[in-house]
Amino acid sequence: MGTTVSVLGLGQMGATLARTLRTAGHSTTVWNRTPGRADQLVEQGAVAVESAAAAVTASPLVLVCLATYDAVREALGPLTAELSGRTVVNLTSGSPPHARETATWAVQHGAVYLDGVIMTTPDGIGTSHALLLCSGPPTVFEAARTVLATLGDPVYLGTDPALASVYDTALLGLMWGTLTGWLHAVALIGADGPGGRGSATHFTAVADRWLTTVRSFMNTYAAQVDAGQYPAEGFDLRLHQHTMEILAHASELRGISPLLPDLLRELTGRAVAAGHGDDSYARLVEFLRLPKDGGPR
Amino acid sequence: MGTTVSVLGLGQMGATLARTLRTAGHSTTVWNRTPGRADQLVEQGAVAVESAAAAVTASPLVLVCLATYDAVREALGPLTAELSGRTVVNLTSGSPPHARETATWAVQHGAVYLDGVIMTTPDGIGTSHALLLCSGPPTVFEAARTVLATLGDPVYLGTDPALASVYDTALLGLMWGTLTGWLHAVALIGADGPGGRGSATHFTAVADRWLTTVRSFMNTYAAQVDAGQYPAEGFDLRLHQHTMEILAHASELRGISPLLPDLLRELTGRAVAAGHGDDSYARLVEFLRLPKDGGPR
Repeated sequence: MGTTVSVLGLGQMGATLARTLRTAGHSTTVWNRTPGRADQLVEQGAVAVESAAAAVTASPLVLVCLATYDAVREALGPLTAELSGRTVVNLTSGSPPHARETATWAVQHGAVYLDGVIMTTPDGIGTSHALLLCSGPPTVFEAARTVLATLGDPVYLGTDPALASVYDTALLGLMWGTLTGWLHAVALIGADGPGGRGSATHFTAVADRWLTTVRSFMNTYAAQVDAGQYPAEGFDLRLHQHTMEILAHASELRGISPLLPDLLRELTGRAVAAGHGDDSYARLVEFLRLPKDGGPR
Repeated sequence: MGTTVSVLGLGQMGATLARTLRTAGHSTTVWNRTPGRADQLVEQGAVAVESAAAAVTASPLVLVCLATYDAVREALGPLTAELSGRTVVNLTSGSPPHARETATWAVQHGAVYLDGVIMTTPDGIGTSHALLLCSGPPTVFEAARTVLATLGDPVYLGTDPALASVYDTALLGLMWGTLTGWLHAVALIGADGPGGRGSATHFTAVADRWLTTVRSFMNTYAAQVDAGQYPAEGFDLRLHQHTMEILAHASELRGISPLLPDLLRELTGRAVAAGHGDDSYARLVEFLRLPKDGGPR
């Protein structure tokens, strides 16, 4: 049985959220600042309203998906009376301070507030691997979970509303590291592998399987970081350093940028020089944390 | 029914290979340059011999897992007569030229030769996600596949014996990119998240799920690289650049090294400055390939 939901903001992502909610059978009210974006949604059974106030009062659960936090402030700012008693899930991208400010403001006006981040592109919405990171009161998450689960995979991070935004940035850092390492590999294979069209796809089929092993290293190393102990188990920083030299040399020979090999050698070199050559790769976390001014590391 | 296999080299990895072959029921002959490493394997039913020659002649299939290619040359070099008619799978780490030279040499002496790379630590041997990259004649791979499958997941790359080594280096580059992005994220979360013990493990449980989405981007982008066309589909380089600034700012605020954010901004900045801000992240592959001297990109 469907729930009644309002969606504020019908950009590419907001419109996809509303369409997915309709398809799943939820009664959906939609609003967009500039009109004309709701026509197709109305054909699919959504109700379009002409003000943010009407959208907020139409449903107990309000999803906000606007371009910026300024747009959120502009849309919700005047609606202090209407917000009372509503559950607001704010899926607008922003910074941790934005999330905390908006949470405080919403609670002052009697709303319950969950901050959320959608970790996919619009075409990933409705798939089981589309993470929807949420932070705020756990009861609010539980209340919204069924609706959010029609949009992706809701993950609850904790009570601090800023957590979703902090995780967003950190997970994007992981994505960029992965994609940059992958692109460097693709460039290397293209220069020396079977060559020509098709080689990135061929390599990536193997790379995709390899990431299963990389994930198992990552999970092993996570426990090491938490324990502050970094046993190498046969794959120590000296061996990494040696094979990084092979990567650097291969990249140079084949005309591939030294940016990534240089970063890896710099970071690993610091740890080995500090006497950690027998430790696992996870030790490098301590060399990503800069020493505090004047104090010990 | 078991096959007869010889294993040359009983370091940590070689000994693990021999033990796993024995457990799977293969008749296993083992040799190590320095004696005394085979005792436990003999208790498990392996046959230890005192010379590389005796090990090579004991089995039609010979796995070589020594510390270096120099050690391979030293052990196999004198055995030109014994090698004739044998299948040699060389799992010793080395460079692409090493693989090509050794393949040529082995074939000149009547052996059939497959170059292999083990993409795991010894504790991963025998698991289904342990990639065993192989390159050389496809018939040799097919003949060795059943035995190799007891050790991991054999992947055939092509006839050029250097391919396994090229893929090895490229896949390690992907691993380092991924693990460095992950460690940067862990450092960031540790500085601003729930904090204290347990936060790396907590973050990594989410990161592990997130990598499913990253893998889907990677597969989409592989086809783009092969086509030389980079449609952004809602996630263009300008948006990446904007969110990279957030990562850089968050890292600076929290005392985390700028190494990774700086690399990402540098690379993305070059592509946007060259007019590719509307393209997907895959466009960056063209900025990892350095321009050839004097010629156009």
